[in-house]
Amino acid sequence: MEIGFIGLGAMGKAMAANLIKAGHRVRVWNRSPGPVAALREIGAEAAATVPDVFRGDLVISMLAEDGALRATLPETGVIAAAPKGLLHVNMATISVALAEELTELHRQCGLGYVAAPVFGRPDVAAAGNLNIVAAGPTDLLDRAQPIFDVLGQKTWRVGEEPIRANIVKVAGNFMIGAAIEAMGEATALTRGYGVSAADFLEIVSNTLFAAPVYKGYGALIAEQRYEPAAFKLTLGLKDIRLALAAGDGANVPLPLASLLRDNMLDAIAAGDGDRDFATLATVAQRRAGQISKA
Amino acid sequence: MEIGFIGLGAMGKAMAANLIKAGHRVRVWNRSPGPVAALREIGAEAAATVPDVFRGDLVISMLAEDGALRATLPETGVIAAAPKGLLHVNMATISVALAEELTELHRQCGLGYVAAPVFGRPDVAAAGNLNIVAAGPTDLLDRAQPIFDVLGQKTWRVGEEPIRANIVKVAGNFMIGAAIEAMGEATALTRGYGVSAADFLEIVSNTLFAAPVYKGYGALIAEQRYEPAAFKLTLGLKDIRLALAAGDGANVPLPLASLLRDNMLDAIAAGDGDRDFATLATVAQRRAGQISKA
Amino acid sequence: MEIGFIGLGAMGKAMAANLIKAGHRVRVWNRSPGPVAALREIGAEAAATVPDVFRGDLVISMLAEDGALRATLPETGVIAAAPKGLLHVNMATISVALAEELTELHRQCGLGYVAAPVFGRPDVAAAGNLNIVAAGPTDLLDRAQPIFDVLGQKTWRVGEEPIRANIVKVAGNFMIGAAIEAMGEATALTRGYGVSAADFLEIVSNTLFAAPVYKGYGALIAEQRYEPAAFKLTLGLKDIRLALAAGDGANVPLPLASLLRDNMLDAIAAGDGDRDFATLATVAQRRAGQISKA
Amino acid sequence: MEIGFIGLGAMGKAMAANLIKAGHRVRVWNRSPGPVAALREIGAEAAATVPDVFRGDLVISMLAEDGALRATLPETGVIAAAPKGLLHVNMATISVALAEELTELHRQCGLGYVAAPVFGRPDVAAAGNLNIVAAGPTDLLDRAQPIFDVLGQKTWRVGEEPIRANIVKVAGNFMIGAAIEAMGEATALTRGYGVSAADFLEIVSNTLFAAPVYKGYGALIAEQRYEPAAFKLTLGLKDIRLALAAGDGANVPLPLASLLRDNMLDAIAAGDGDRDFATLATVAQRRAGQISKA
Repeated sequence: MEIGFIGLGAMGKAMAANLIKAGHRVRVWNRSPGPVAALREIGAEAAATVPDVFRGDLVISMLAEDGALRATLPETGVIAAAPKGLLHVNMATISVALAEELTELHRQCGLGYVAAPVFGRPDVAAAGNLNIVAAGPTDLLDRAQPIFDVLGQKTWRVGEEPIRANIVKVAGNFMIGAAIEAMGEATALTRGYGVSAADFLEIVSNTLFAAPVYKGYGALIAEQRYEPAAFKLTLGLKDIRLALAAGDGANVPLPLASLLRDNMLDAIAAGDGDRDFATLATVAQRRAGQISKA
Repeated sequence: MEIGFIGLGAMGKAMAANLIKAGHRVRVWNRSPGPVAALREIGAEAAATVPDVFRGDLVISMLAEDGALRATLPETGVIAAAPKGLLHVNMATISVALAEELTELHRQCGLGYVAAPVFGRPDVAAAGNLNIVAAGPTDLLDRAQPIFDVLGQKTWRVGEEPIRANIVKVAGNFMIGAAIEAMGEATALTRGYGVSAADFLEIVSNTLFAAPVYKGYGALIAEQRYEPAAFKLTLGLKDIRLALAAGDGANVPLPLASLLRDNMLDAIAAGDGDRDFATLATVAQRRAGQISKA
Repeated sequence: MEIGFIGLGAMGKAMAANLIKAGHRVRVWNRSPGPVAALREIGAEAAATVPDVFRGDLVISMLAEDGALRATLPETGVIAAAPKGLLHVNMATISVALAEELTELHRQCGLGYVAAPVFGRPDVAAAGNLNIVAAGPTDLLDRAQPIFDVLGQKTWRVGEEPIRANIVKVAGNFMIGAAIEAMGEATALTRGYGVSAADFLEIVSNTLFAAPVYKGYGALIAEQRYEPAAFKLTLGLKDIRLALAAGDGANVPLPLASLLRDNMLDAIAAGDGDRDFATLATVAQRRAGQISKA
Repeated sequence: MEIGFIGLGAMGKAMAANLIKAGHRVRVWNRSPGPVAALREIGAEAAATVPDVFRGDLVISMLAEDGALRATLPETGVIAAAPKGLLHVNMATISVALAEELTELHRQCGLGYVAAPVFGRPDVAAAGNLNIVAAGPTDLLDRAQPIFDVLGQKTWRVGEEPIRANIVKVAGNFMIGAAIEAMGEATALTRGYGVSAADFLEIVSNTLFAAPVYKGYGALIAEQRYEPAAFKLTLGLKDIRLALAAGDGANVPLPLASLLRDNMLDAIAAGDGDRDFATLATVAQRRAGQISKA
């Protein structure tokens, strides 16, 4: 296929590379030029402008956050100017409010739009093992499926309205934060009675909690390995804010998400904002007087 | 071995039965006579009194909570009267305060004492697949190991002080409650945007959260199957109180445990105390106006 | 003085009327025409357009929320078009983010800008008894002081940067919410032991908590008089969101504000959004099973 | 009257002194002898034993907490041995569980019992300006009223069951903690935007929150005057635990009390347990990175 790809952060770069390796013709654009150059070496074309990406069979966007997406797409008129019938697959994690706006904008402009956010960190993206949560009209999802098969190990279709995929992604990320908080408090508690975080987490993450989130973040917590960050705490906070905003929109109280938000602000105020999301676990330990401030 | 066994609730009964089937000579006692009769049919002896259990090679206690244990053991003088050198393996979930008291009492009375609480619900106990967390002097743990091998799939030794096993168990149970709360809030959020709890939980419990706690409790939540209770919400609250009390004892703030406590009181006030622990997930849904009161 | 006045809600209307009665020449504008007509009867002039308000000695704005203010002022170019040197006194409760934007916009356009949000409900405004929190350059505050003396019983100057007045107002409103929540939980607790909210609140609001917030909201809670709303719960939530957003901007965790937010969403989901802010107190009572859903 | 008085802490000592000055014959007992000696100088008699206090017209107890009271009264048989018809006025802050036990014990033993906990710190007690919350049979309250008139500025009768006075006291103390927390978070927020705690608290405690709790604790917070403690944070935590325990007993979720508990543990872990209750306000400031650890 002829694919436009916009947004080449750690995730987007790995995904675009996989598409190239799978034999697709990929035209890329990114705000900063570094990732473009790297992808050109393995066969990507560089788009001169954003509108130049919006043609071909399908466009994938993987921009980091609402602000970047808004500045790049709806506010620039690029959607209105794109050829009718083009399919836009938005794989970024965005707010449900923006998801609704984009769905409506594409409809008005005669473009196809599906939401397909992903679970998985950059190494998972590079391995083509993402879990993709996709929502949109069935025929459009069918058109995108060959691409999803390259990028992910499994595609979970959750309905016709794109927003449904976004809320699954937002709720899933909230659960990751909840798991880290639980590990943080639980290990602060065991440490208060002489059992190290490592010893405790080895047990739970190999028994009741034998799942990737607990094994992955649990290892970082056990080893106190918060740098370099694979996923920064500030990005985790962005996702929790998406959950809280979605809760606001549907009158859903989310006290655990509120707790995560407050503890992440605590972590940022303590200087840990650029560390890995796992560093959230240290807030409970610091509040218990077990570690001093960074 | 010649084993005394005290406390034949759903867990204890399944465990005692496995010991009998493994060829051990088991003498049982329980406050209510029903389980005793059932076990006699497969070969147990019935102890006439509690002191009659406290002899032989080893005594296992599996009493439901601090109050029952206190009333049965320290306050009755049974420990003081037991033969010196007897090994008492306490497999119940108790408070760290009582754990410390019991450790000291056994030491004073010349009895061996190890704590070996377990992770697993009654069906897991029946299958001999418990995860056992054991702490105590190494030689005593070695003496108990053949028993642990019958009862569980794995024994996790966490040190010489019995309290260390108790805190691991208490912290682990707290994490289970945290997982249920996270699923409750996350599914309230997705439902607010049209994605059912079942659809959402199928995705997360087969990907990032592919672990027994999420699969097991997730299924109950997805199917709204809260009765009959395998583990009552009121028992879950008892465990959260143990976590909070342990936090009190070591100056560890546990805001997530506090949140669980308050939401469980909400559930009890709504009439759900005797339902399964998983019913905690409905608090978030009810607060979002998605379900009416029971 | 010749005064422009924009935003004639319950508060603005009462304030504008007081200025007219004090002998000032007041030119008013409002999105809906009703309040304009009422004020014309007591001597106000009606401005044909928003720019027509922005002339004379001083302009007061009292628009209900960030959105209305943004749509009326910065996005319309009215500030840029206003005569240089005009003094704009913004008495509305707005976000700190917008406060900073407006300060900068007026500076660039050569207009004077002071923030002067007020404490007091409409009846207090009508009586000219508001407490005014003012911040801005001293000479500008001096120019506005005669107006403040008409509108309020006291003006609290808090510095040269307008944002300082906004944060005081936002933090003060947060404290009001906190007081209502405290009364809600405390009375749920006493009711659990047979002491009515009315009996309890009479004691505390006449002793330790003998202050307007406790007397005023306490009376509403004691009498369960939540309609008609003098100040709607949804407006209270708007203010809590301003506090949380301000906390976000300065990395200040606000767990009590988060709690208020979640409980207000609970109230809205229960159908109480249009009732008085005091209805927040019923959330604790409902969660304790003391009242059924509305 | 001939009055026995047991428990001569800062509060009890001031109260007993006022009774002596009012011309009553007061026989005192205290665990540590210091306060007894001081009161003898102004005319008190020293009781040799606790039973020696339990005679005369009326006995007042003012013991610091449940544990001390339990050890002194029910567990010693002193109630059973006291002369029938003696009136015991318990003015201490105790748990509702113990309040119910004591009510029943006195009934069984044929003694009169009323609960009359007080609001006010030691300086208020010394001035005879306490607010007394009294509950018990009307005739018993009438018998105690002359004493209440000496000790307090006002007596608030809340019914026939003693427990009703206890829950009012417990709920009131919880509200004090809530006010301190609100001031702590609000001032952390204003400081994040350059407005000092002192400036902010001067405004709110002289307007909407012009009440003793806000003026008193607000002054301590504004001046960061946390030592010496008039009322230690650890004692404040004791009271919050009484509120949480009472909530447990009646299925009343108290998320704000939970928040206070966790923040007080944070304060204790930071080394502030012996400072004034007002130091709770510093938790929010420390979490926002505004102050370093003590």
